Amino acid sequence: MNSIGVFGLGVMGANLAMNMANKGEKVAVYNYTSDLTEKFKSNFTSDNAEAHYDLERFVNSLEKPRKVFLMVTAGPVIDSVIDSLVPLLDKDDIMMDGGNSNFNDSNRRYHRLKEAGIHFVSVGVSGGEEGALHGPALMPSGDEKVYQEVAPILEKIAAQVDGKACCGYLGKEGSGHYVKMVHNGIEYADMQLITEAYQFLRERLGLSVEEIATTFREWNEGELESYLMEITSDILTHVDEETNKPMVDVILDKSGQKGTGKWTSQNALDVGVPLSIITESVFARFLSGLKEERVRADQMLSGPTKLDQDLDKQAWLELVRKALFMGKICAYAQGFHQYKQASEAYGWDLKLEEIALIFRGGCIIRAGILNEISDAFKADKQLPNLLLSPFFQEKMNDYQASLRKVVIKGMESGLSLPSLGASLTYYDGYRSSQSGANMIQAQRDYFGAHTYERVDKKGTFHTAW
Amino acid sequence: MNSIGVFGLGVMGANLAMNMANKGEKVAVYNYTSDLTEKFKSNFTSDNAEAHYDLERFVNSLEKPRKVFLMVTAGPVIDSVIDSLVPLLDKDDIMMDGGNSNFNDSNRRYHRLKEAGIHFVSVGVSGGEEGALHGPALMPSGDEKVYQEVAPILEKIAAQVDGKACCGYLGKEGSGHYVKMVHNGIEYADMQLITEAYQFLRERLGLSVEEIATTFREWNEGELESYLMEITSDILTHVDEETNKPMVDVILDKSGQKGTGKWTSQNALDVGVPLSIITESVFARFLSGLKEERVRADQMLSGPTKLDQDLDKQAWLELVRKALFMGKICAYAQGFHQYKQASEAYGWDLKLEEIALIFRGGCIIRAGILNEISDAFKADKQLPNLLLSPFFQEKMNDYQASLRKVVIKGMESGLSLPSLGASLTYYDGYRSSQSGANMIQAQRDYFGAHTYERVDKKGTFHTAW
Repeated sequence: MNSIGVFGLGVMGANLAMNMANKGEKVAVYNYTSDLTEKFKSNFTSDNAEAHYDLERFVNSLEKPRKVFLMVTAGPVIDSVIDSLVPLLDKDDIMMDGGNSNFNDSNRRYHRLKEAGIHFVSVGVSGGEEGALHGPALMPSGDEKVYQEVAPILEKIAAQVDGKACCGYLGKEGSGHYVKMVHNGIEYADMQLITEAYQFLRERLGLSVEEIATTFREWNEGELESYLMEITSDILTHVDEETNKPMVDVILDKSGQKGTGKWTSQNALDVGVPLSIITESVFARFLSGLKEERVRADQMLSGPTKLDQDLDKQAWLELVRKALFMGKICAYAQGFHQYKQASEAYGWDLKLEEIALIFRGGCIIRAGILNEISDAFKADKQLPNLLLSPFFQEKMNDYQASLRKVVIKGMESGLSLPSLGASLTYYDGYRSSQSGANMIQAQRDYFGAHTYERVDKKGTFHTAW
Repeated sequence: MNSIGVFGLGVMGANLAMNMANKGEKVAVYNYTSDLTEKFKSNFTSDNAEAHYDLERFVNSLEKPRKVFLMVTAGPVIDSVIDSLVPLLDKDDIMMDGGNSNFNDSNRRYHRLKEAGIHFVSVGVSGGEEGALHGPALMPSGDEKVYQEVAPILEKIAAQVDGKACCGYLGKEGSGHYVKMVHNGIEYADMQLITEAYQFLRERLGLSVEEIATTFREWNEGELESYLMEITSDILTHVDEETNKPMVDVILDKSGQKGTGKWTSQNALDVGVPLSIITESVFARFLSGLKEERVRADQMLSGPTKLDQDLDKQAWLELVRKALFMGKICAYAQGFHQYKQASEAYGWDLKLEEIALIFRGGCIIRAGILNEISDAFKADKQLPNLLLSPFFQEKMNDYQASLRKVVIKGMESGLSLPSLGASLTYYDGYRSSQSGANMIQAQRDYFGAHTYERVDKKGTFHTAW
C-alpha cells in the first residue's frame, strides 16, 4: 500500500512526487491523461513510486485514511477532479490541494468536502520547480487534527532551516492559500523595492551594472540577505552573448503578472488594510505595460532639469541600503497586518510567527530577517504591527532618515520610486497621532450627512453646515 | 395616465419624484410599505403626483411603454423588486435603476430583463438629497435607442450647466453605474488631496484655520473652482458652539467609507490600470481608523527633528495651490484611463467627453476644470491619457516643479501626503520611457521561467540563469 497519492503530473506534481519518493514515502501517482504518467515513469524509477493509469486503482492503492495530494491547474479543474474522487473515497480520507487556488475557492471546497465526510487541507506551495523537487515552503491549513495526520509527510518533503521544516499548521479552512497569496504580494513588493534601489544606484549614483552586482552581493551578506537579493546580483553579472551588453539592458521593460499580487491588493481593500507598498508594486507593473505611451510622455512631459552631480557614492550606498531594508520591513508590516486582519475577519486564528518561520526556506521571499519577524510575533501575540516591536522600532528610528533622503533625492531627480515612496508615506502616516481624516469626516457630513465622532465625547454627531 | 413611476420613497426616491412633478411630469409613486407613501403625500401636494398603495394599480397608471424608476436600496432588494414588477410589465416597457448598484449586478440585470423583453437603463445618480430634489447629475447607460425614450424626463430633472443637462447617454449595459462608481473614486481622491493641502498649510506653513478658509475661498475663484473646495472653505469657517474651537478640530480623525472607492480600486486592479491616487485615498481612510495604534506609534517611531522654519508663506501658498491642481488632474487622468480601459475591456463604447460634461453639475465632484477635461477628449477621441492633451501637458510642465517641492517639503517635515505623493510618483513614472520593469522581468524569468521580451527583436526569450 502507498502512504500518499499525487494526482496531477505536470512539472510541479511530478517533482513533488519524486521529492516524496526520494524521502522514503511510498507514493502513487496518477494523471488524467496517460502521456504525463508515461513521462514520469521514463524520467524516474524508484521502488517508492507507483504509477497508475486507472483512477480507482490509484485510490485503492492508498493506505486508509487515504491521503491524496492534488497538483492540478487552479480553477474549475480542481472542482471536477474533486467530483471524480469523492465517490471513490471513504469517510475521513484526506484531500490536499497544492495548487495556486484562490482562498475563497478553498474555503468553499473545505466546507463542501466536510459535508461529504472528507477532510480538506489547503496547501500553499512556494519554491517553483526546484523547490518542489528538493524542498518547497508549504503553507497548510484546515483542521489541526487532520493536519497532524499529513504532517509527517509534508514536513519531510519541505525545505529545512535550522532543523525546522518550512511547513507547519497555519490556520483554519482555506487560509493556507490565503497565506500563499499574500506571500506572493510581498514578493511583488520585494522585487519592486530591489528594482528601485537598482534604479537609484544606476540612474542617480551612476554606478555600473558590475558595481551594482558587487554592491548587492555585499548587501546580501548582511541584514538584506535573501534569495531575491542573491538572484538580482546574479542577474546583473549576466551578459547577453549576442550584443555583449548587460543582460538586463536587452530585456524590454514591460512586466507581466499572473494575478496573485492583484488578488492580495483586492483583498486588502476588502478587509480594510492599507497595503500601499504591494499595491504600488502591482500598479508599477501595469504602468510598465504602457511602454509606447511612456515613450511618448517622456517627450511631452518635463521633469527636473538641474541635478546636483557630486553625490558622495559611499555615503549614498549606505543610505540606499538602509532605505531598501526599511522599505522591505514596511512591506512586511503591511502584509502581516493583512494576515492579522484577515485572521480576525474570517475567524482563522492564523499563526503569524509560524508563517514567518515557514517563509525562511524554499520560497521566493526567503530571507534572513524572517527570524526577527517571527521572534517579534512570538514575543507579543497581540502585536498590532511589526513596526511596534522593539527590534523593528529601533531599526526604523535608525533608518527612517535614510529612506527619507533617498526618496527625496529620487523625487528631486525626477525618478519614480513608487514603493520606496509608499513606504515612507506609510511610515509617516502610521506614526501620525493626528491624521487629516477629521477634514474628510467634515466633508462627508457636509454633503452626505454621514455624521462624525468627536474628540471630546462619545457618540455620533451631525452638523447643519 | 402618468408619464413615469417612481418605485421607492426613501429620501432620494421621494426627492426625485418631487423633482419630476415640479418639472411638469405626471409621476406615480409607490413604496413597498405604506408609511413612506403616507409621508410623501403629507409632505408634497401636486397635481402632478399620484400616490399608489397597490403595485398593480401603480403599474397600470403608467403610459405605455411604461417607465419605472427604481430608487431602492442597492443589492438583492433590487432583484426582488424586479421579480415583482416583471409579471406586471409588457414588452418594451422600461425599467431604470437609480440606486448605487454594483455595475456587475447592473450588467446581469440588463441581460436578464432583455430576455424578458423589458428594457433596462442603469442610472448613476449623484448629488445627494439636495441634488435629487433640484437637479442631480445622471449617468444613464443601456441601449441608446431606449435612452432616447427616457431622455426628455431625465434631462429635464437633471442639473443644468451652460444650457446643457448634466445627463446624457454614456454607454452600453450597466456602464452608467460603473461611471458613478469611478466618480466616487475620484471624489475620494479629490477630498484627500484637498485635505493634504489643508494639512500642509496648517501644520507646515502654520496658517490658522481662518487663513486657510480665506485661502481656499480665493482658490475657489480660479482653476480650482469646485463644490468640494467651496464646502471645505465653508467647513473651516464653522466654530463649535460648545468649545468655541474650529469645528474641524473637535471632529475625530477616523473616517468611514461606504465601499464605492474600494470597488473602484478593486476594479482598476482587474482591468490593469495604475490607480494609485484614488487607492491611496482609500488606504488613508483605513489608516485613519487605526487611531489608537497611531497614537501609540507616534510615541514610538521618530521623524525629522529639525525643520527649516522660515518658509515664505506667499510663495508656498502658490506652490501648494499648483500642487493641489496637479494632484487633481493626475487623479482625473487615472480615473479617465480607467474609463477608457473598462470601455475596451467590457465593450461599452463609453463617451469620455460626455462623462466630463455630466460631472459639471449636480454631483459632488463638479468643478470648473471639467470643461477642459471634456474638451481634451472631444478634440482627440484616441487620447490615451489626459496628461497628453495639449492643455494639460502645458499645465503639468508648468506645475510639476511645484508639486515636487510640496511633496518633498512634506517628506522633509515628516508629513504624510499619500495622494499628493502618489500623484508625483505617477507623473514621473508615466513620463519614464525606461522603467525598472526589465529587472522585474529578469527576476521573474530567473525564478519562474516566465520569459521576457527583448528591446532589439520580437519574440519571447528565456535565459538559463
